[in-house]
Amino acid sequence: MVKTVFLTIAYDGTPFSGWQRQPGQRTVQGEIEKVLDKLLGCKVTIEGSGRTDAGVHATGQTATFEGELKIPMEKLAFAVNNLLPGSIRILKAEEVRRGFHARFDASGKTYTYLIANSNEKNPFYRNRLYYVAHPLDKAAMERAAKSLVGTHDFKCFEGAGGNPRKTTVRTITSLNIDVSGQGIDTIITISATGDGFLYKMVRNIVGTLVEVGLGKLSCNKIEEIIFSKDRGMAGHTAPPQGLYLKEVHYHKRGIVKD
Amino acid sequence: MVKTVFLTIAYDGTPFSGWQRQPGQRTVQGEIEKVLDKLLGCKVTIEGSGRTDAGVHATGQTATFEGELKIPMEKLAFAVNNLLPGSIRILKAEEVRRGFHARFDASGKTYTYLIANSNEKNPFYRNRLYYVAHPLDKAAMERAAKSLVGTHDFKCFEGAGGNPRKTTVRTITSLNIDVSGQGIDTIITISATGDGFLYKMVRNIVGTLVEVGLGKLSCNKIEEIIFSKDRGMAGHTAPPQGLYLKEVHYHKRGIVKD
Repeated sequence: MVKTVFLTIAYDGTPFSGWQRQPGQRTVQGEIEKVLDKLLGCKVTIEGSGRTDAGVHATGQTATFEGELKIPMEKLAFAVNNLLPGSIRILKAEEVRRGFHARFDASGKTYTYLIANSNEKNPFYRNRLYYVAHPLDKAAMERAAKSLVGTHDFKCFEGAGGNPRKTTVRTITSLNIDVSGQGIDTIITISATGDGFLYKMVRNIVGTLVEVGLGKLSCNKIEEIIFSKDRGMAGHTAPPQGLYLKEVHYHKRGIVKD
Repeated sequence: MVKTVFLTIAYDGTPFSGWQRQPGQRTVQGEIEKVLDKLLGCKVTIEGSGRTDAGVHATGQTATFEGELKIPMEKLAFAVNNLLPGSIRILKAEEVRRGFHARFDASGKTYTYLIANSNEKNPFYRNRLYYVAHPLDKAAMERAAKSLVGTHDFKCFEGAGGNPRKTTVRTITSLNIDVSGQGIDTIITISATGDGFLYKMVRNIVGTLVEVGLGKLSCNKIEEIIFSKDRGMAGHTAPPQGLYLKEVHYHKRGIVKD
């Protein structure tokens, strides 16, 4: 019997050319599909909640696929993990109602962005965080973040090269900034939750917040930047290795219990 | 003027064939010496507090060298880090009294060993921890650890292939086991402090403690194992990627203040 399977996935994005399957490239989707092809004995296509770029990580990416399993559902994650590289882990595999779709049924996402704010680099953070050597003004960044929360046309934060969208209006429901640790371990965590994010939107927001934190950009300018709809007005694109897709939200996942 | 320089060093051991310089191999010592050669304009030899094996990490390795600096001491770490790969960082560079030696003057060391105790693997821990899928009995491991603390002939924990030693008697002053996190993030941290450790001694102790934690070995057997002086009686060698050289202790470092 064909089932719809919902996967929760974590991956270290470092060795991959992003999420999306591409011929001749090592991608997260490609690696998972290769393993599912083997296990199910036929060509499997998984639908992710969205793409992540090369170097971007996930602790809670989601994907769905339809297929006839030859093993019990509760053994699927273990079996897939056995064949996957260690940089990708299926955290959960669950049966959901027929036709449920990881992307179309998603109601929102939470991303986390990690910045190491120290003039010395901890070698264990390589490929995992964005290094900003100069001290960031957290209070200014928080004021700027406040102006970003809400429903706005976020065109100024849309990166070039994404899929065309009907609208660039999105709602950011929360944008929090936390600081932990000290010295070489000073980590600034930016958490962004919204109903959806445009291509490179989180990284462009983070780059803008960093420029506010450095005093290069006034936190009072944010509304003007949004209003301009001009990518050139906003800050730089923060690098991919600090970004983590943390959670994909669903109103109802329709999990099928055995 | 020739100065004696004391370095505190952190490195992610993953890409290296260990600490010690070896022709044709990428090693931590080799990488640092290559940079110092360039900066000082002559052949520099650094003396580490000891070797670490391929894949073993350090958050507080130490090394000394003698040389004539062409830049102020307070700028040395920054200049060296600029030329080093991101997997090695000089945390501190200090002038110490002439002739001070990172190895010969050391009075002891602290190692940390990290075990992820979960049947699922967090992809971000790859190359950073030892995975043990079955739940470990912390109380039994602690009882075994208690029997190891003190001055003993630790020949049973000495790995083959190390430098010959005058004696295999060592003193372990503390051996603590902590558990943190839950689920995929359950981490068992074993901290070992002693006046010195034999070749692979920490990893052999950890492997033995893991076997105790799994119930394969009784915690009451430890004294017998020590007494046997037989490597075959003790547990397996825990893998290198869980081991961190955390701190090298000195009675007196004789730091020269400007």
